Amino acid sequence: MATKKEKIEEKLDKESVKKLEEFGAELAGEIKKEESPAFPLPIRAKSNITFDEAKKLLVLGEKLAHRRFLNVAHTRKFMQSVLVASACKEYIESGRTVGKRELYYNLKHSLPNSKDNTFEDDIESGGVLDDLEASLDILRERLHVEAKSRGSIYGNITLSQAGSDFDCSKLGRGGWAIPGFVEDVEVVNFKADYILAVENDAMMSRLIQEKFWKENNCLLVTGEGMFPRGVRRFIKILNQKLKLPVIAFVDGDPYGFYIYSVLKYGSIELAHLSDRYAVPNCSYVGMTMDDIDEYKLQNVTERLKDVDVKRINEELEYPWFKASKDWTRQLKLMKEKGVRIEQQALASKSLEFVAKKYLPEKIDGKKFLP
Amino acid sequence: MATKKEKIEEKLDKESVKKLEEFGAELAGEIKKEESPAFPLPIRAKSNITFDEAKKLLVLGEKLAHRRFLNVAHTRKFMQSVLVASACKEYIESGRTVGKRELYYNLKHSLPNSKDNTFEDDIESGGVLDDLEASLDILRERLHVEAKSRGSIYGNITLSQAGSDFDCSKLGRGGWAIPGFVEDVEVVNFKADYILAVENDAMMSRLIQEKFWKENNCLLVTGEGMFPRGVRRFIKILNQKLKLPVIAFVDGDPYGFYIYSVLKYGSIELAHLSDRYAVPNCSYVGMTMDDIDEYKLQNVTERLKDVDVKRINEELEYPWFKASKDWTRQLKLMKEKGVRIEQQALASKSLEFVAKKYLPEKIDGKKFLP
Repeated sequence: MATKKEKIEEKLDKESVKKLEEFGAELAGEIKKEESPAFPLPIRAKSNITFDEAKKLLVLGEKLAHRRFLNVAHTRKFMQSVLVASACKEYIESGRTVGKRELYYNLKHSLPNSKDNTFEDDIESGGVLDDLEASLDILRERLHVEAKSRGSIYGNITLSQAGSDFDCSKLGRGGWAIPGFVEDVEVVNFKADYILAVENDAMMSRLIQEKFWKENNCLLVTGEGMFPRGVRRFIKILNQKLKLPVIAFVDGDPYGFYIYSVLKYGSIELAHLSDRYAVPNCSYVGMTMDDIDEYKLQNVTERLKDVDVKRINEELEYPWFKASKDWTRQLKLMKEKGVRIEQQALASKSLEFVAKKYLPEKIDGKKFLP
Repeated sequence: MATKKEKIEEKLDKESVKKLEEFGAELAGEIKKEESPAFPLPIRAKSNITFDEAKKLLVLGEKLAHRRFLNVAHTRKFMQSVLVASACKEYIESGRTVGKRELYYNLKHSLPNSKDNTFEDDIESGGVLDDLEASLDILRERLHVEAKSRGSIYGNITLSQAGSDFDCSKLGRGGWAIPGFVEDVEVVNFKADYILAVENDAMMSRLIQEKFWKENNCLLVTGEGMFPRGVRRFIKILNQKLKLPVIAFVDGDPYGFYIYSVLKYGSIELAHLSDRYAVPNCSYVGMTMDDIDEYKLQNVTERLKDVDVKRINEELEYPWFKASKDWTRQLKLMKEKGVRIEQQALASKSLEFVAKKYLPEKIDGKKFLP
């Protein structure tokens, strides 16, 4: 007997298949009418992306393009879109999920009676997938294409997936390796007040060791650097299902700031999916430029390189940083001081400092950046 | 009451502390005798590394250098070695493990009454750690310094670490995220005939989904690309504890070949630790150049770039490849064909092809490269 969860999954899969079938039927209809088949898709260029101040999200505008079979410049992409759509329908119906590169190879040479490659590389197939996602307004994961995984979760939460339950507080020193497909993850139970999103996996290890998750009643998630798409989707799902706020703990440098902004507002490449990825009620605990003086970390900063300064100047122009007094101040202060500060620099105080003093003090006192 | 495992751990920790104390006592003794304190360390340069044909391992030769306090060129490194040794003793005694970068920050500015940085970056502190490891003939992990983690395990094995047991066949679509410190991992029980070491994490995901581990009675481990040190150590520990052979499944290109050789023979940088990392009874299932014709994959190869050809030529000179007719043939064949082949190219047959046909056929038929 299907569980409630399986029924929801099935329903979502059916919806996806329905959208794909409608997509195909429309094109077939046009062909029957002897028209040139075509489908619309939102333009995913910077010119059509705005920062929605009210929603606090990067969003796609209304501008549409059309991909027409009988336009020589479009024919190849048109064929590719139909190929990908048809393959995704197959993936869903066979209950399989595929990686982006697997999709590429699976379709690379699939035109009968032709020696031509249907795709030259996975950038080409990935672009078509992005377009299809935007055109059908359906998440890649719902088409059974996995996102890049790389990252883990630790803490008082029992999850269920693919028929097994597991307690993420009982995994030794490691955590649960977040897979590239998390649409079917179910929460069996949990005990936590917030989700701490940690940039660095060695910092994650420190917080696991110090039992920070236990003493501070939180879930730890790391994406090992820039959070990959799969981890962001997983954080978003937890954020929605558990109704818990997300707190970001990253390096005090332009890259850490950017990681945070992608988590909170979405990214330019995925602006058409911001509502399904971005976590608007995310806040920033550290590292900040003020931490350097507050916690006397002057000796463990790293000097900015030219490339860092260039990145700061770029970020000062990003609407979401520009609109915030606090963030503008941080970025300017970083340039002024000429240094950046890593999470792990807190180890200069003592190994346990981050878990026993820094984070509890800042989180309990709600000393956040917006 | 301490478990048997805890007692073993304790004993290993005591041995490490004893070695560190002897190291300190020796230096103190020399100072008391008003001699310049010094310690010997094996030279870790290419000139002192050989490929041991009998043991099938990269090994360090007998050449020794001495690090002397009263040699101006050595003084700084001498001071750093003592600092690191002393910190490691503290880590062991407090039951903590640290990451490489955490170690750097923890010690960066720890000289009282000095504004000088004791280390300029983690390459400096990492080098000192490598030296200490070679000098004391003790594994970094035994000094409680974690290796880089990144990778996961899946399959019929129940592990125990840090007071919790977990079944690695009941973790949904994800696996157990292998932590950077695995010296204290205990095997509660397992059911497997071999360990399959998989290069690509998307391939890992495919094999989990197809239940390859279940149907073929094996454990799946991935290092997500080049296996990091922590994952190699973990594979070695499993290899020893479970007495299971390791089979490598990587891309058919010079990088895949190299990943395999590091797994099997050790690496040049860690030649002093080959016996604790390398898995001599490792074999290679694929991808091979012969697979391209055997499985008709001509259409899904990728053309070699100049940098690939350069790498092939380098590998043809490596003693462990040079000594093997089979490997020399593979490398030459690759140059001849001018192509490489990725694991995921098998998806061009069908998604399940790798799990239902390719791997079972080759593994059951023992179609391995040495």
